[in-house]
Amino acid sequence: MDETSPQFKTLYNAMSTFVNTCMSGHDPSHNPAHVHRVVALANKILTSERALHPTTPYSGAVVKLAALLHDIGDKKYLHSLASVLESDSQASTLDPTTMVHHALIKNGATEVLASRVQTIVSHVSYSTEIKDPSVIRRLIDEEGFIELAIVQDADRLDAIGAVGIGRTFTFLGAQGKKFLVDGKWDMNNSIEHFGDKLELLEGMMKTQTGREMARVRTERLKVFRGWWEEEMEVVSS
Amino acid sequence: MDETSPQFKTLYNAMSTFVNTCMSGHDPSHNPAHVHRVVALANKILTSERALHPTTPYSGAVVKLAALLHDIGDKKYLHSLASVLESDSQASTLDPTTMVHHALIKNGATEVLASRVQTIVSHVSYSTEIKDPSVIRRLIDEEGFIELAIVQDADRLDAIGAVGIGRTFTFLGAQGKKFLVDGKWDMNNSIEHFGDKLELLEGMMKTQTGREMARVRTERLKVFRGWWEEEMEVVSS
Repeated sequence: MDETSPQFKTLYNAMSTFVNTCMSGHDPSHNPAHVHRVVALANKILTSERALHPTTPYSGAVVKLAALLHDIGDKKYLHSLASVLESDSQASTLDPTTMVHHALIKNGATEVLASRVQTIVSHVSYSTEIKDPSVIRRLIDEEGFIELAIVQDADRLDAIGAVGIGRTFTFLGAQGKKFLVDGKWDMNNSIEHFGDKLELLEGMMKTQTGREMARVRTERLKVFRGWWEEEMEVVSS
Repeated sequence: MDETSPQFKTLYNAMSTFVNTCMSGHDPSHNPAHVHRVVALANKILTSERALHPTTPYSGAVVKLAALLHDIGDKKYLHSLASVLESDSQASTLDPTTMVHHALIKNGATEVLASRVQTIVSHVSYSTEIKDPSVIRRLIDEEGFIELAIVQDADRLDAIGAVGIGRTFTFLGAQGKKFLVDGKWDMNNSIEHFGDKLELLEGMMKTQTGREMARVRTERLKVFRGWWEEEMEVVSS
């Protein structure tokens, strides 16, 4: 399906409404605004990578839909979906491995498009990649899911820089006592998350464009962490 | 009561336990860790101001107790106190204008000390000052509540810089849909809070030491806001 066709626009708008329905109740770290930033970042990376690699056959439709749907089925929020979707025929299942495929087909996507987007959505997450990085490499390098690289980079760019810092603390506040490290609901948990994950993302970027943008945003994380440590030093001495 | 006396240490420890009880369930933007940072900042400012103004008779006991108790009775969290304190004889009342006085007297403070600390605690907040700044000026300049300047500055330093940024987003996440600006639970609400309040605090600092520390931390807010605007520009174009 061509990304400039009227059919694509109709499908994209329907899926955008679906995403807003599923995520409107989420806290601001994972709400529709996050998704729409990731779509915009994916579009930016796509434009730049097409210019850098004119013969690589990126599907703009796959990039846009996978970016839009990348957080549908996120385990952290799955519990909140049941009530939202119980009367929504677009999702008769809460199975995170098939929800996106199901909703796409219901809204007129071809089987090929729905399958490609579902596969990418199912492999975007950091924790999935950490479990076995070779699966992701194989999908991108050997099985032709070249759009996964763009969607992953876009999602990870929104996890770093000033926006990433804001999202990390917002998530801490929203998750409440569920988000415990060593039994403590503490802002230092968020700072530990910088070193445990956020500062590692730059090294996992898959596109040249993503890597360049990540360099700037990772530097921001490090500057912020330096401020934090200096301010904590003042109150611990 | 001398701040180095055993009686003061006993009183301070009892009040510290009281604060931990009252605030242990609060989100990390206003929990005991925040209070203990404010106490440490107040001690730092006190030491520095004593060196700058050797003849000014600051009471260390008043500074330490008012810093420790400054958030007891905070309207934002008062609803959560009822269940915590229902079986606690230290607070037979949830009246924010007398809670601190009551708890201090119960734990052996003199009437003079309890009254001074209550008056300072009741006048620390930014929103109280904004309503009528002349009340605060009169307390500090004419009525001898010189410790209020130190406690206010300490509390406001913890609202800016990297820690202030973390607290703002944590509060956004924790308050949930109650924390709505124009009906939206949105990270931009936090950024608007920088310009509406946080960047104004430097100009309201009352001590030379607080003002110098606030300059550095306010610059951090502005740098962070610049990063934020740049990242938002990328996704809006």
